[in-house]
Amino acid sequence: MLYAEFMSSSLPLQIGTTADEPCLRADAARNRARLLEAAARLVAERGAAAVTMEAVAAEACVGKGTVFRRFGDRVGLLTALLDHTASRLQADLISGPPPLGPGAPPVERLRAFGLEVLRRSSEQLELFLAAQDEPARRVGHPSQRVLTLHATILLREIDPGADHELQAHALLGYLDPAVIHFLTKERGMPLERLEEGWLDLVERISTPVA
Amino acid sequence: MLYAEFMSSSLPLQIGTTADEPCLRADAARNRARLLEAAARLVAERGAAAVTMEAVAAEACVGKGTVFRRFGDRVGLLTALLDHTASRLQADLISGPPPLGPGAPPVERLRAFGLEVLRRSSEQLELFLAAQDEPARRVGHPSQRVLTLHATILLREIDPGADHELQAHALLGYLDPAVIHFLTKERGMPLERLEEGWLDLVERISTPVA
Repeated sequence: MLYAEFMSSSLPLQIGTTADEPCLRADAARNRARLLEAAARLVAERGAAAVTMEAVAAEACVGKGTVFRRFGDRVGLLTALLDHTASRLQADLISGPPPLGPGAPPVERLRAFGLEVLRRSSEQLELFLAAQDEPARRVGHPSQRVLTLHATILLREIDPGADHELQAHALLGYLDPAVIHFLTKERGMPLERLEEGWLDLVERISTPVA
Repeated sequence: MLYAEFMSSSLPLQIGTTADEPCLRADAARNRARLLEAAARLVAERGAAAVTMEAVAAEACVGKGTVFRRFGDRVGLLTALLDHTASRLQADLISGPPPLGPGAPPVERLRAFGLEVLRRSSEQLELFLAAQDEPARRVGHPSQRVLTLHATILLREIDPGADHELQAHALLGYLDPAVIHFLTKERGMPLERLEEGWLDLVERISTPVA
């Protein structure tokens, strides 16, 4: 029932199609995906600040006008890039290979889920921080809700008697980009320590209380 | 050693005295405290939106000019109000009666700590949300660091072998005002459910993994 809600929701699960572009032609969709991949490479290699309309055009070997026509401005491009990233993660969670996707025990999937979010977030940290909404909306953002729902479903499978939704929020709080930023940049912790901390947290939260 | 750092830190632990006012006279300090208490009553009774310079002056039975002279503007007043709240919580954690203050087993203090933060946050939710900094600074804010440090110290007492700092961040994530707002306002959960969730989380996190 939760999965049905998940699958039939209007959350951004399709790449390259938005409500504004119901009939995006196949070559236009390919073009869009190519531009977003170029932007993602720039972020990974040189940080979010390096993502300008000009740089993306050069990286994708297209004219600057193409990038402006497709995304409007830089904010439009950054937003599309995060939706793209969120869609790929959602697709991997729903139908990717195990343990991220279906086919592994729920506790293994939960472990893999957090490690994947930690890895992706730390790669695109600036981008995630730039895109965090005002506090009251941050937690309720659609892509955040999908992640919470995913964790809720796995926690329910692990221990049917627990309060899965609250446990999911506790787990997602650990994966907050602002927390990852503080711990890695200001406290200087290596990502490996955060990964071990995640596995430990999953272990403790998923162990039924005597 | 951590406690020494805590106690000797320059964090706002004294009410009514700031770096700008090293020699605040006793009657001025009393005046300031009275105005802040009036503002706190307004928040509790009518919400953060009701806190205007005029309303605080009326509630405290002083002239409007007094409020402006003391706090500059509404933002200054709201900030002072949150520092006031944070200082009182810090004082209770350091030297208040157990189980919030010293003198109870660490796991009991940790339980009481979260329940108290949940209660205070839910009372002044709008105020907390209005005062949340940009994402990158939110987690590193001085008053947030004190709470994380407090949880870290208790977790170290409970289980010396764990990664206390990461566990503390996981616990504090559960107490994020944005999460409390989402769960109580948008998901309609009663505060009691969040309180039970906190006790369960403390139980799971503080139980040594076999």
